[in-house]
Amino acid sequence: MTTAADTYTPTDRTVPTRSRERASYDKALVHSILDEAYICHLGFVRDGAPVVLPTLFARVGDRLYVHGSTGSRPLRATGDGVATPGLPVCLTVTHVDGLVLARSAFHHSLNYRSVVAHGTAHQVTDPEELRTALDALVDQVVPGRSADSRPANTKELAATAVIRLDLDEVSAKVRTGGPNDDPEDRSLPHWSGVVPVRGGYGTPVPADDLDPAVAVPDYLTAL
Amino acid sequence: MTTAADTYTPTDRTVPTRSRERASYDKALVHSILDEAYICHLGFVRDGAPVVLPTLFARVGDRLYVHGSTGSRPLRATGDGVATPGLPVCLTVTHVDGLVLARSAFHHSLNYRSVVAHGTAHQVTDPEELRTALDALVDQVVPGRSADSRPANTKELAATAVIRLDLDEVSAKVRTGGPNDDPEDRSLPHWSGVVPVRGGYGTPVPADDLDPAVAVPDYLTAL
Repeated sequence: MTTAADTYTPTDRTVPTRSRERASYDKALVHSILDEAYICHLGFVRDGAPVVLPTLFARVGDRLYVHGSTGSRPLRATGDGVATPGLPVCLTVTHVDGLVLARSAFHHSLNYRSVVAHGTAHQVTDPEELRTALDALVDQVVPGRSADSRPANTKELAATAVIRLDLDEVSAKVRTGGPNDDPEDRSLPHWSGVVPVRGGYGTPVPADDLDPAVAVPDYLTAL
Repeated sequence: MTTAADTYTPTDRTVPTRSRERASYDKALVHSILDEAYICHLGFVRDGAPVVLPTLFARVGDRLYVHGSTGSRPLRATGDGVATPGLPVCLTVTHVDGLVLARSAFHHSLNYRSVVAHGTAHQVTDPEELRTALDALVDQVVPGRSADSRPANTKELAATAVIRLDLDEVSAKVRTGGPNDDPEDRSLPHWSGVVPVRGGYGTPVPADDLDPAVAVPDYLTAL
């Protein structure tokens, strides 16, 4: 049985105008798409115009944290986080899983998984929450890394700003499977199918000044 | 010698407030970052709030084309393309090249190449330009594919909308190299360096109904 606790509630802006069958509000699906990423594209409005910047993010439960310096444009707009109304944002995460080649140009597509979250972001001001968010931001990129690095000191904390977006008005969109050619096109001589898209990591490259006695840690080998 | 023709002119919104040394207005660099991608994140404003959607795009010279159906939200907002003022957009493309692990959590970073283009998008209404754009959109994903698929027919053309954004107010941002640890952190026991991030393709999977006599074309093997 699906309960309200398992799903986000659709709203006018999380119901797509096209390909509605690809949309989902399932929390587990939304979280899995977010957890596989560490880069989002954060949109906000400045002087009436849209701005989209790639930014590190992390998920902690039903909260997303986005990293920035205190000098960055979106964060300045959130003011001190408490006294200001916050910054309306749209945070989008996309994975491309395959190139879908149909016989017709029209039916070419991509297999993908995306999440679009709308809401109002606020700067994190609570010191404990800021520490939690910073650890999560490091661990979102390399799980286990925050425990194996020097934590931020007071000066660094003061120079770092993190904004929070609560997951509430959010949806996933997923396409899977092969091309959907029209029946009359199936005898055309063109190859059709899916080219899988893969992400991966190369061999870690030590810093120039790294003591050669320091081995590559297990959490990197596990990537 | 660098001439005006080789570079885009910086504007208030293409000069970053932080990490200015990473910004570039070099046309060749901007084009190379765009040409390696086929997905962008397109931002626009709807009812005063930002919206960011992942979308296919292609570059043809100094023009970007973005794909959508005639029912999609950003395209509806551009109206008929000629009589309307167009849609202010921000189009962003990002490649992640490496995870940069410093001894301190604070100096963790990513190596990346990104392009952010601002401007006003208009719907493509000229039939010849629409054909060119559709071919470019297919070839941006798989170079050579448009010549090996059935072109759009009249009905499909009517159901497809493409918007154009001229490259004018645009910048690249690039980070390369290893971690920038503070000198006093260099004796800490944590591994530091860069984990390369790689993209790639798997073996093409033919459609269920593909005639087994149709071989995988050379342009796919070349991917």
